[in-house]
Order: sequence, then C-alpha cells, then structure tokens
Amino acid sequence: MPVIANNFDLPFNIIRCSYGILGVKDLDASKKFYTEAIGLIETETTADAAYLRCLEERQHHSFVLQKSDEAIVYGLGFKVSKEADLDALKKHFKKLDLPTRWVKRYAQGRTLATHTPHGIPLEFYFEMNKEPRILQKYGLYRGCSPQRFDHINCFTYDLQGSYEFFTQELGFKLTEYTASEDKDEMLACWMHRKGTVHDMALTNGFGPRLHHLAVFVPNALDIIHLCDVMATTGYVDNIERGPGRHGISNAFFLYVLDPDGHRLEIYTSDYLTVDPDLEPIRWNFLDKQRQTLWGAPAPRSWFEHGTAFEGVEIQEPYLKNQPIIAK
Amino acid sequence: MPVIANNFDLPFNIIRCSYGILGVKDLDASKKFYTEAIGLIETETTADAAYLRCLEERQHHSFVLQKSDEAIVYGLGFKVSKEADLDALKKHFKKLDLPTRWVKRYAQGRTLATHTPHGIPLEFYFEMNKEPRILQKYGLYRGCSPQRFDHINCFTYDLQGSYEFFTQELGFKLTEYTASEDKDEMLACWMHRKGTVHDMALTNGFGPRLHHLAVFVPNALDIIHLCDVMATTGYVDNIERGPGRHGISNAFFLYVLDPDGHRLEIYTSDYLTVDPDLEPIRWNFLDKQRQTLWGAPAPRSWFEHGTAFEGVEIQEPYLKNQPIIAK
Amino acid sequence: MPVIANNFDLPFNIIRCSYGILGVKDLDASKKFYTEAIGLIETETTADAAYLRCLEERQHHSFVLQKSDEAIVYGLGFKVSKEADLDALKKHFKKLDLPTRWVKRYAQGRTLATHTPHGIPLEFYFEMNKEPRILQKYGLYRGCSPQRFDHINCFTYDLQGSYEFFTQELGFKLTEYTASEDKDEMLACWMHRKGTVHDMALTNGFGPRLHHLAVFVPNALDIIHLCDVMATTGYVDNIERGPGRHGISNAFFLYVLDPDGHRLEIYTSDYLTVDPDLEPIRWNFLDKQRQTLWGAPAPRSWFEHGTAFEGVEIQEPYLKNQPIIAK
Amino acid sequence: MPVIANNFDLPFNIIRCSYGILGVKDLDASKKFYTEAIGLIETETTADAAYLRCLEERQHHSFVLQKSDEAIVYGLGFKVSKEADLDALKKHFKKLDLPTRWVKRYAQGRTLATHTPHGIPLEFYFEMNKEPRILQKYGLYRGCSPQRFDHINCFTYDLQGSYEFFTQELGFKLTEYTASEDKDEMLACWMHRKGTVHDMALTNGFGPRLHHLAVFVPNALDIIHLCDVMATTGYVDNIERGPGRHGISNAFFLYVLDPDGHRLEIYTSDYLTVDPDLEPIRWNFLDKQRQTLWGAPAPRSWFEHGTAFEGVEIQEPYLKNQPIIAK
Repeated sequence: MPVIANNFDLPFNIIRCSYGILGVKDLDASKKFYTEAIGLIETETTADAAYLRCLEERQHHSFVLQKSDEAIVYGLGFKVSKEADLDALKKHFKKLDLPTRWVKRYAQGRTLATHTPHGIPLEFYFEMNKEPRILQKYGLYRGCSPQRFDHINCFTYDLQGSYEFFTQELGFKLTEYTASEDKDEMLACWMHRKGTVHDMALTNGFGPRLHHLAVFVPNALDIIHLCDVMATTGYVDNIERGPGRHGISNAFFLYVLDPDGHRLEIYTSDYLTVDPDLEPIRWNFLDKQRQTLWGAPAPRSWFEHGTAFEGVEIQEPYLKNQPIIAK
Repeated sequence: MPVIANNFDLPFNIIRCSYGILGVKDLDASKKFYTEAIGLIETETTADAAYLRCLEERQHHSFVLQKSDEAIVYGLGFKVSKEADLDALKKHFKKLDLPTRWVKRYAQGRTLATHTPHGIPLEFYFEMNKEPRILQKYGLYRGCSPQRFDHINCFTYDLQGSYEFFTQELGFKLTEYTASEDKDEMLACWMHRKGTVHDMALTNGFGPRLHHLAVFVPNALDIIHLCDVMATTGYVDNIERGPGRHGISNAFFLYVLDPDGHRLEIYTSDYLTVDPDLEPIRWNFLDKQRQTLWGAPAPRSWFEHGTAFEGVEIQEPYLKNQPIIAK
Repeated sequence: MPVIANNFDLPFNIIRCSYGILGVKDLDASKKFYTEAIGLIETETTADAAYLRCLEERQHHSFVLQKSDEAIVYGLGFKVSKEADLDALKKHFKKLDLPTRWVKRYAQGRTLATHTPHGIPLEFYFEMNKEPRILQKYGLYRGCSPQRFDHINCFTYDLQGSYEFFTQELGFKLTEYTASEDKDEMLACWMHRKGTVHDMALTNGFGPRLHHLAVFVPNALDIIHLCDVMATTGYVDNIERGPGRHGISNAFFLYVLDPDGHRLEIYTSDYLTVDPDLEPIRWNFLDKQRQTLWGAPAPRSWFEHGTAFEGVEIQEPYLKNQPIIAK
Repeated sequence: MPVIANNFDLPFNIIRCSYGILGVKDLDASKKFYTEAIGLIETETTADAAYLRCLEERQHHSFVLQKSDEAIVYGLGFKVSKEADLDALKKHFKKLDLPTRWVKRYAQGRTLATHTPHGIPLEFYFEMNKEPRILQKYGLYRGCSPQRFDHINCFTYDLQGSYEFFTQELGFKLTEYTASEDKDEMLACWMHRKGTVHDMALTNGFGPRLHHLAVFVPNALDIIHLCDVMATTGYVDNIERGPGRHGISNAFFLYVLDPDGHRLEIYTSDYLTVDPDLEPIRWNFLDKQRQTLWGAPAPRSWFEHGTAFEGVEIQEPYLKNQPIIAK
C-alpha cells in the first residue's frame, strides 16, 4: 500500500516551488523563446544569465537561463517561510546524512543547496529581490500570458523512496498518484505545499532527470494562442504534446520543448488542495484517461525524454513498467 | 493547373448547404448523442426519424436521424434562393444528363434530388417549416452549443472531375485546395456558396462517401467543453481527432464519431469569403501544417473512414497518393 | 407597418461594407491607438494618411486615418461584385437624381462617390490592392485581434426614408429592427449584404452622422483583453460602453472612442443571415434587453454622440422619441 | 498608518472560509436559482434546508439554504486544520472575552460558534461529511460552473477594529486594501488564509452585514455564459453589477442577487498569495480603477445593500466616507 500519512510535524515550512535554473547553449535564442513565444518577462540579464519572471510574480526570477555548454539543469528552488527555516533545514539534512552547502544565487538571500537521497538537487531560500507588480500591465502580455511558476516534475529511479522523502522529510502532501493494478506499486505521484495539485511531481524512469517545469496560465485559450504563435513563428517542432485535459489534476495542458530540449508545461484549471483531510486520488496505470481525459495517447518522447541535472548520475528505474502509449 | 475560374453565370442560386440525412441503427441512442452530448435541439421526432436543428437555425431541421438497418447516408440538402430555382436546376441537370426526381421530405416544400456525375447524392429545396428562434434561449445550451450547420465534406474517387462539377455547374467558389508538389494535381478542395470557407469540401479517396458533416460553434472553449463532456459521459472513444487548428481554413476543429460512425466536425473561427476576387489558397501536400497548424498528425482513420451513400457504389480513387500521417 | 419586402432585382451587386475614412487630428496618436491598442495592422502610411487592415483582410485597407483639422468622416466604402457594377450604380443614382463623381482613392481602382437622399456619403469600388495573407501570422496578434471590418452604423434624421433607400434602391436586406410600441414606427434598423446581421445599421437621431464603425473579433475573451489593455495603457477613458451582449444581433460587444471621438464597436458572435426567407426580428423600443440582453443601460453619450460627415449638414430627426437610458 | 504586521504565532490554524448559511423564504425558488442558474450541485435536501456544493468540493456543503421567514444570514463557516484547533480557538476566544458555543450543524463534526467584537458571526469546524468527487463529471456543469467557495465579504461599522481582529487574533494576512488619501484611514481590506487574495474581505458601512459570498469559476466565459443564462431564464433583474475586472485582486467578476437579495459574486483570475513576505497593495479611494479596472462605476446598491445576520444589531459606521459611484 503506497500511500502514507502526511507529516505535519517538521521544524520548517517550505512555502512553494519557486524557480528552475536551466543551462542553455544559446542565451539569446533561449531568451527569445521564453519572452517572445512563451511570454515571460525579462527582469534582468547579466553577462551569463537571463532572469525571467511570470506576470503575477513580484520576486526577481522564476526562470534562470544560465549560459552553458550543455542542455543541463543547475538547480530547482523552493521558498521557505522565514530565514530561520534555512538553518532548521540544514540541521534536518545533516540528521539525514545529506550534504548541504550555501550557494550564491544572484538577487537572492542565503540559499541552501542539497539533494534528495536519489539525487534530485534542491535549493532553499527565503529572501529574493522584490520587483514591481506587472500583473495589470496588460500591454506586456504575450504568448500564453504565464501568471506564475506552478510546479516541477522529475523522473526518479526510486519512485517509492523519493515519494517518501518528499512527504515524510519535507512535508509535501500527496494529492494524486498512479499505481499499478496488480502490485499496487506507486508509479507516479503529485505532491504539494502551496495548496494546488502540486509543487513537485515524480515519474518513474531513468533518473534523476527533470521531466518539466510548469507555468500556470489564466485559461485554455491562452494555451491555444500559444500553439498558434509557436506554430507560426518558427517553433512548430517544439510543440510536443497537447493541448488536452489531464485526468490527473484536471489540468488543461500543453507540453513544449525549449531550444535546448528542456520541457515546459503550460498548465491551467487544477483545484484547491488546502484541506488537510483531502484524500489522494488513485489512478490505475491501465486507465488511459488518467493521462489524457479525452483518450489521446502521449507521444513516446514524453515518457522517455528529460534533461539531466549537472553532475548527477542517471540510474535505471527500479520499476520496469513500460508506459502505455498506444491507444 | 487545377484552378479554374468561378462560374458566376448560372440561372439559379444555391444559397448554402443545409442538412444531412443520416441512417442510424438505434434512433434513441443517436438522438441522445446528438442532443445531450453535442447539444443539438430536437425540433420533432416522428415514428422513424428525429429532426434536429442548431441554436441559431429557424428552419425545422439540419440533422435528420433516420432509422435504418445500416449506418448509411440518405441525403445531403442545399437551400436555393427561390422556388423557381428548383425548376431551373431540374432543367440544368437534364441538360447535363443527370437524373432528377422530386422527393418527399418531411417539413419541407418541393425537393429535387439528383447526384453528381461521380455519385454524390444532392437535394435542393427552398421552403422548410419555420421554427421559433432559440438563439437567445441560453438555458438550452448544452455540449458544444452548435450554432449552425456549416459544411459537408465528401470523399470522391475523381477529385478533379468533382471539383469542376461543383464550381462550373453549380456555382461553388474555390477558397483553398491541396495540391501535389510534383504534378500539381488537386488532392482536396474547399468550395463555398454562403460566404464562409466552405459549404462543400472534397477529399481524394474511395468514394463517393461522406467524410463528415460540420457544425459551427461560437469558440474554441465550446469545443474543449465538448471534449470534457464526451470523455466523461461514455463517449471517450467517439473522439477521433483534435482539438486543433487547421492550417487550411484556419478553423479550430474537433472530429467525433456518432454511434453509427458518421463523422461530425465541430468547427469555428474560419473567415469571410464573399469577395469575388478572393484568391484561392494553395497548400502543398507535403506541408504538415495544412492539416494541423500545430504539426500533430491526423490518425489514419481520419484519412480512411467514411460512411456510404445509400445505393451508391464506391470506387477506387484515380489518384493513388497516400495520406501523410506520420509526423 | 415599417417592414417592406426585399428588393432582389437590381442591376448591380453590392458585396459588403469595406472601409471607413476617418479624419484624425494627430495621425501618430491615432495610428498608435488603432495598431497598438486595437490591434489593426498597418499596411502603409503615406504623407497624410495611414492605411490599416484587419487580420484576415487581404485588401490594402479597411481603416483609413486621414490627417485632418477636425474629427470628421470623409467616406464610407462598399465593395461591388465587378467593375461593371460601378457603371450600373452610376446610372441608377442618376435615375434617382443623386449626384455622383469618380473619386481618387489610394490603392483602389475606380471609385464612385454619392450620398443617400438624406446625406450619408457612400463610395463604391471593385478593385483594391491585394496584400499578403496574415491571418496565420499569430505573432502579429495584438489588442482584440480584429479579424475583419464588420459594419457601419449611422444616425439619420429620416429613419424610415433611409431604411427604404438602402433596402429598395441598394438591395440591403433587413434582419432586425426596433419599433415604437404604439405607432409601430421604425426607430433603428440593421441591414445586410454579406450574410451577417448587418453591413449597415441606422439609428434615429441628429444626422446624418457616423455612429460607429465595427470590427469583428474571434471571441468574447478578445474583447475582455482589449478592456484590460486599454485600461492599463492610457485609454481607460476611451472605453464608453460594455462589454455586454446585445439583444439585437446577439453580438457580444464593446464600444470605444478613438482619440478623435470616432466610435468603434468591437463585435463578435452574431449569426448567418443568407436565407432569403429569413424573417426580420422586431424589438419593442421599451424592451431594455434589446439594447443589452443582461439589462444594463447604455450611457447617454451612446445615444447622443457621433461624428459628422465632411461638408454634410446635420438635421433634427423627424422622430422625437427619447432613448431609454435609465434602468 | 493602517497596515500592521501579520501574526504568525497563534495556537490554531484556520485553513479557509468554507460555507455560508443563508435564510431563504422560498426554499424551492432558491434551490432552483442556485442549481439551475448558478450551477451549484445539490448534495442533499432535508425538511428545512438544501445543502449545495461546488464542482471541485468533496465536502458535503458550501451553501446551506435554510428555510426562513426573513432574508437573513445564519452563519459563516471556516475549516480548521485539525479537531484540536477547535479547543484552542475556544480558549482563545475566552481569553478575548468573546462568547462561544457548540452548535449542531448537519453533516458536520463539532462546530464552534462565536462572533467578532463587532458582531460578525463565525463558525469553525474540522470534520464534514465527504462526498464523491464530481469535478470531472462534466455532464453536470451548468450556469457558471462554480468550482469552489472562494470568499466572504462583510460590511463592518468598525473597519480598523475588524481588520485588526482578523489579522491579529485569527491569523488572516492582508493582501490589498483601500485607504483614504488624506487621513490614510483603511476603508476596505482583503485578507486570506488559503493562499488566494482573500478568504475574508471587509467593507466600511452599516454593519455588520453580509456584503456577499463568492464562488470561483474557471474563466471569464463562464461568467458571460451565466449572464446570458440569467438574462433569458427570468433572472435579468438579479444581475446587479458587471461583468468587469476589479483593479483590486485583478479578479474578473459578476455580482448577482439571489431571490432573497443575498449577493453572490462570481469570481475568477486572482493570484497566489502564499509568500509570507508578499507586500499588501494599497489603493487610493479616489482611484476609480480600484473598483473596476475599466473605469465603469458600480451602482449605488452595491455600496449600500447587504443582508443582516440573525439577531445582530446593525450600527452606523465610524467612517463617514461616501462611496464614489459617479464616473
């Protein structure tokens, strides 16, 4: 039985997932993609990185495009509720025998880096530079009008172990999961901190790797407009999957690939999950509507492609199930 | 060179495509599909047929569901501008050596039936019973909120011949077409009478067969809602293709199959075509964006499946091209 | 009884309303408003005029912004079906004792100018320069994504006379009208050529004056986005009325004023009117839902403000009814 | 200076606002309004009350329609994080000299009732009967497709005092507020627990009274559809204000009145507020865009009308400002 009780008793409070640091080979090309096609707002560009944010965000960045020789992921950031949480987290990771270090992140305060027992790199911070509110600067709206950084999805080679780490050691709460029919093994899970369906999702597969970062958009027509824009501004081959409705999370979704192959989900219309007694929803792995409510299969690439984390070895998954991709 | 000049000089005026008569094996099941899922309005049901209309239509029917032993199509109806046009059409068909007969159609005036030289059955009428206006009875809106019958699409074994018949002998105007790159053969065409992209489209293939009937809906969200409704009320396997944006016509589309396998397109956002000097748009058969602007391929069934016309023999197409369905 | 039968028997064919020529005092300011806020596309700017078009239009212009000392209207253009129609129209106007002249219009072929017996200036042309198709250049979409010029609405001091002229002498077809309850006088009417609810609408009032020009947009969210954009880019006071749903025409609408006070309607979701036997819809002047289906009253300015035609005297209306503006 | 620091140090955790109990004079008429027009789902109806919920809610009710001789409000409910919070709250209120009692609420566990120092009645509970998930039963969607109970807005005669009570004694966090220009008095405020713009808003005026309850809907088109439905099913006069965009909260809104005059806001598109260091937004009372971003004034009724709480005396507000309702 894979579901375990939430752990409400931790000496720190992770507020939400907050940013991703993506290694990109051509900074100008990536910036163009994220600002002109997707519609992110450029806060600042330094010598080797561009700092972008979504329309409702008042912090300095949620997407960091870092010049790189490879298409690699440098970090995944989470905001905590106060400065002291960082010290509590450091102590907690030490107890768990996980290495930590204080990393320098532009426009942020103290930032604590570690990784999960299965290699997913995590960063925690409280302070970040404040930026002017642009939510109501409607003249700036472009592409899919991204409102906010919504969630992170990673491949992991140890699904059950990773799930237990996030829920028991970091206080994430399970909202939905996929399980095999026979052995009742958990094959994918969605866990939140901020009261939506997820801040962090895990997918069984060669890992750890980033499956995707996601932005929340106002409604489905913003997603359709992005398809139209991408299809007619040179990005037609960057549209990977969708648009469609997920059974899981009820989200209306689109998956696109950036110029380096980092996957981005454009996401809307999930639901509130703040109730502590909300029961997780179990999906049967054989139910094709869990993936797409309307029945359309995902392309094979969606189950197989991901981007690596810098310096982290990728391992074969413990669970050998194959994704169902035929209709 | 396949495009020929419009023929503006005919002694009759076909206003628009108007209805389809679909043979259905289970009248209750079909009526349920068309009214509860799709959202058509039931005008009247007789002993052996249900007469349905769209929300803005003030005529008695645009969809006739006729009890039948087979999933077959009984007729395709077109409205003319006045009663005398019917006599002019009869004379015109006689001159062309095409057989005509006056058929009895419930709730219609005189109705002239014939078929194209390649076997597509056509019916013409001017008078039909008037019904109350329900466009602003918003409490009746269901499913995709179908506003009006939009167009008819047929497979034909002689694409060029059928195209010439509709444009030269019936006054249809070409708006868009697909042509092979090498031989400049026309492989599909879209032709209108009413000022939209089409009343009648033709597709190369085993024919004549009905490819689909189409309804026009207000916007893309109505189509997404229909997907959600069909996916969760027992019709998930009836969703065949889409939603997506056609390159051709610019329409946002969805294709679904009714309980007998008759295909229905849910269609919105094409453009006005009333200018007589509007130049037809040529699409290269190798351009995948003609089919779906966003690049997604259509499933094989979409190129192969259609429903037969009652008593009409199906022939192999002259053109042997294969549809492009791989990405 | 104000409704008279359509006149289908005229020796020319007016296809549709096509353009307006607006006198503007600050060409740059007006161009900025129409392109950056509304989203029209600039085809060309000459020394004294800017030529703009909507996204699906393949002709050179539908909006001409003409440098001027006054906020005045220079012309209203209609497209005919062929060059010879212009000569037939000239002859027809001569028979009606209406003056005509050939005017020079940039990027157009021969253009015949006249005015209605009650002073509304009209221009007719067949040829206009062709421009590239940009409907699927989604990267260009801005503001409300205007698809096409939809209709013209004028104040007239002689409603019944003007209505009769358009329907009997120019072949326009009545689709909807407002009538007083007691005397059954027509107080406003909507008439079409192109198969939508109207190409030309007439409103009782001090006239002749332009009430508004209208563009058709894909859906209601485009209108809401325009409100958001105008409200936050310096045009909040240019929003006059709406958004809302008209009872008449069923359109979802917004009325805005350009920098010179010319009124523009942003319009979507009316219905097809091509059937020759479609019966006009009568609205009672006392029914507040004719104006706004949802019941909200229009502001007084909407009933009173309009822009004058160059060199045309404005007269007091024959009908002295007052608009209903209180709830 | 009206803004005070958040109080993060309380021995209980209020999760969110959860329900309203509305006294209605005709239970059938009210049930019809809320289910057929608005689109709430009926969970259960007892002899004297109907229990309704929104589409994503898995608890028994969020709207209780209680048969009553008057149009009065019986209670406002809040969910806490665990059963023990109720005891902590009881102790807390005792310390504050506020009376408490355990009330019996159908389909709920222990429920603690009290009122604020200025008379707003509050109820707290942890347990409520669980109901099947219907979020993906799209065949049930009607009206505006309400997803969840969003917030409560009350008039209070002591704005500053009430604001301090909610933030200092109950742990609500301020997100936006209106202040007078001269004296910097707070005139209205928006405060949350669940991570959206508000669970509770306060408005200066004769109070305490309920200003409105609000439901969250997927997008603006759902609101437009509700306008269309209400306008054509006998509820046109129940539409009070909107649709429009609030400057405050950025929400797209509509205000309607139920058959007893209880006000309901239909609400969408606000933003995430979980960051503890998110700075409250100050709006100047003289800025008309705070109320409606697009500039349209609210009707006078919106500033004046509210419904009383059972047995609670209404007092004159301390602040004598007048609402701005003229454009």
